Amino acid sequence: MKKIAIQGIKGAFHEIAAMKYFGSDIEVITCTRFKHVFEHVQHGDVAYGVVAVENTIAGSILSNYVLLKNSKVKVSGEISLHITQNLMVMPGTNIKQIKEVYSHPIAIQQSGEFLNNYPEIKLIEWSDTASSAQKIAEEKLTTAAAIASEYAAELYGLEIIASHIETNKRNYTRFFIIERNVHDVVENNAASLCFELGHQPGSLVDVLAVFKREHINLTKIQSLPILGKPYEYSFYVDLQWNDRKKYNRALNTILKIVSNLSILGEYKHDESFNKE
Amino acid sequence: MKKIAIQGIKGAFHEIAAMKYFGSDIEVITCTRFKHVFEHVQHGDVAYGVVAVENTIAGSILSNYVLLKNSKVKVSGEISLHITQNLMVMPGTNIKQIKEVYSHPIAIQQSGEFLNNYPEIKLIEWSDTASSAQKIAEEKLTTAAAIASEYAAELYGLEIIASHIETNKRNYTRFFIIERNVHDVVENNAASLCFELGHQPGSLVDVLAVFKREHINLTKIQSLPILGKPYEYSFYVDLQWNDRKKYNRALNTILKIVSNLSILGEYKHDESFNKE
Repeated sequence: MKKIAIQGIKGAFHEIAAMKYFGSDIEVITCTRFKHVFEHVQHGDVAYGVVAVENTIAGSILSNYVLLKNSKVKVSGEISLHITQNLMVMPGTNIKQIKEVYSHPIAIQQSGEFLNNYPEIKLIEWSDTASSAQKIAEEKLTTAAAIASEYAAELYGLEIIASHIETNKRNYTRFFIIERNVHDVVENNAASLCFELGHQPGSLVDVLAVFKREHINLTKIQSLPILGKPYEYSFYVDLQWNDRKKYNRALNTILKIVSNLSILGEYKHDESFNKE
Repeated sequence: MKKIAIQGIKGAFHEIAAMKYFGSDIEVITCTRFKHVFEHVQHGDVAYGVVAVENTIAGSILSNYVLLKNSKVKVSGEISLHITQNLMVMPGTNIKQIKEVYSHPIAIQQSGEFLNNYPEIKLIEWSDTASSAQKIAEEKLTTAAAIASEYAAELYGLEIIASHIETNKRNYTRFFIIERNVHDVVENNAASLCFELGHQPGSLVDVLAVFKREHINLTKIQSLPILGKPYEYSFYVDLQWNDRKKYNRALNTILKIVSNLSILGEYKHDESFNKE
């Protein structure tokens, strides 16, 4: 059975993403921090890790790109999950009894319009959605609710009293699959890169012009100031290509413009993000 | 006295940022959510708001750029704060007594190396740094600590038992000052824009080439998929210019390339970000 490290406990969206990518015949190693997911994969005691890198509400989870850049593991795959949120309670609890709602800050944000109907309920940010469900169940709380997945409700024996409470129904999270050793796969058609540029006006234009010339799609770009180098920036970009030759040629060309180029990974693009 | 809306309670870094920008003679209106800060300013019952938009660990706080885009308020100023974190307890508490540490997730992340020395301490994510200090003080917890500013320790009568525990000493947060009505100010030399582009390879190159030609520095760029428009992206960019004429000419030119261009604000750049 494949061992997969995830952030969060059983029932977390990371586990659901792992099952979507690898199938249900997996052994999930739960970690309290993303850092530990990278460490397990880097040490080799776990073959794969699953880490969220982007969602449609909060944008990029840049801290995970930074962990990726600073680790020796590579991205070998990508999977997108359509996220629905649900309000769940101890069976028999009524919504009028609820004084507190626990969940991950992003899940609370995603359920903003629903929660605005209950201004008297206190919102408590929790480390992840599944552990907020676990808390309600283990402590048998009858004046509190959790926001989490249907799967978490099932796993912890909670009753869903409001389903699909996410404000925006097009609510996706994108996850990277990470591995220690990756091999060239013919089907790969996407890559994530990181590179640095000095603060000359327009040096980024030169890089992007190379991608344009080689018909490579830029599907994400984000800059990050480099600590201690006031006028320089790191750029994280995601690319898609149809022709590996053009992609390789583009890499060769931009190497002359940028510094500290890292290929964070090459993988097959998951078409389902933001598409359903 | 100027009324300033902030996210968080008294002692939050947002209050420190407000005092750095406006001086200490201000009345601070505390809000539990960023959304409420925007609402106060938009309704006009508060003249100014202060909202964090970027930090050197987690990068852009994109959700606040999105709130800005969807509101009718504008950015009229910018202020950067050098952030130091401190471990604080009820006076007399010893570090060996501590079983739990409360703080905002970013503050916990910023103090990662220090906390790694105490793997047995449970880390509990809290809505903001100041309210974690307030919790320790109000509940007189002697087996818990908070991570927050020196100012919060002073305000809530806590004792700092470890100071400057942030891993990276170059730890900055950048805040925007928001207002309902803004006027052209001669000193302005920076702007934040948002625009949309279709998914043609290279259309971003054309926009950035305009900025390059007009000698406008791009100090931040980030893309965000547009919900429900699978192949289109929003871009948030921060610019700095020396010559307003060139900036205006660049705006006129890019209007022909992009759609839904919004000027989120024009302001005087605060040189201190990432510089000390």
